[in-house]
Amino acid sequence: MQKGGISSAVIKRLPRYYRYLGELLKMGIVRISSKELSERMNVTASQIRQDLNNFGGFGQQGYGYNVEFLYNEIAKILGLDRTYNIIIIGAGNLGTAITNYTNFNKRGFLITKVFDSDKNLIGKKIGDMVIEDIAHLEDYTKENKVDIAAITVPKEVAMDVANRVVDCGIKAIWNFASVELRLPKSVVVETIHLSDSLMRLSYSIKNKSDRKA
Amino acid sequence: MQKGGISSAVIKRLPRYYRYLGELLKMGIVRISSKELSERMNVTASQIRQDLNNFGGFGQQGYGYNVEFLYNEIAKILGLDRTYNIIIIGAGNLGTAITNYTNFNKRGFLITKVFDSDKNLIGKKIGDMVIEDIAHLEDYTKENKVDIAAITVPKEVAMDVANRVVDCGIKAIWNFASVELRLPKSVVVETIHLSDSLMRLSYSIKNKSDRKA
Repeated sequence: MQKGGISSAVIKRLPRYYRYLGELLKMGIVRISSKELSERMNVTASQIRQDLNNFGGFGQQGYGYNVEFLYNEIAKILGLDRTYNIIIIGAGNLGTAITNYTNFNKRGFLITKVFDSDKNLIGKKIGDMVIEDIAHLEDYTKENKVDIAAITVPKEVAMDVANRVVDCGIKAIWNFASVELRLPKSVVVETIHLSDSLMRLSYSIKNKSDRKA
Repeated sequence: MQKGGISSAVIKRLPRYYRYLGELLKMGIVRISSKELSERMNVTASQIRQDLNNFGGFGQQGYGYNVEFLYNEIAKILGLDRTYNIIIIGAGNLGTAITNYTNFNKRGFLITKVFDSDKNLIGKKIGDMVIEDIAHLEDYTKENKVDIAAITVPKEVAMDVANRVVDCGIKAIWNFASVELRLPKSVVVETIHLSDSLMRLSYSIKNKSDRKA
């Protein structure tokens, strides 16, 4: 399998392929042509063939793609053939929403602990999960394997929290704070920029009305 | 100014330029070279010049970019030179987190109403905002201008809610439900796919450790 040379644009599309193929599997669909897949996904068939060719191209002429095989191959590429332990730092509404979101669990992303610094939250429960004092972060990470830390604290303290997480040896951060985290290159960061998303929406609104005018 | 021919990759980077330039403005920085901007943003200087050239190129040889001018121009391109009324549908943890997020307000995205169908939530408050019965959605949209509906309901009901929103004449949806909304082309949709983001993170984790191995 090819490695390293895959563009980030292709990587960005892979989770979408994965979701679609998962839906097809649930519906009991065994194989699909790039044409059919393209109609469902609203992407051109040639784009699909080109994207999937990056990984050796799992399609066969005249047969199309074997849904389950492709689904499992993409899972492997995305690193979904294992589980990940996630801790949530920040038990506010956003942290609570993420902790309650059972879909992550199904995909192998296991939320193992939720931390906060607020004495009013510590000891309370989110579902079955007791909110832990952030003061215990270092001890916890010494005794428990943590693959990902989700940061759902206010942006003013996000950088401090991120540094502390990195000092604990955690190598991946899922950042929800609206701030660019500057961290060592050995740490991977994926940021959910809600305001960027809103700005893309306003751009689309503007462009739609411009086109009509 | 050029229109239509701008790639979606460039559009995706614009909010990030906008955020950075906003930070520079706050720091009182009047002008910046593409080289300095590139160091701050961790993008190549040629990428920056190329991106900004799409909009007529606001830089001047030997001077660089005027921060405020560029900031305001990008704001216009992104449609940020006006305000948007947003309603939130779904007053659970995610809807509450978004309603409480004051930063949107500063950028001109005004949350004007929050709806839910849960009798236990209707009438309660998020900050100063009283949660409204979703049964009043149609009446509300007849009497009030709504530019964007944020959908923060469970994915099982998201499509129904989206159809209802579209029937009310709302032309833009900010979708947080993990489902692809199939809507008329006249409606713009921006989806926050949390699980896609997690999958990109697992991909990065996998690739880091592969590289080390």
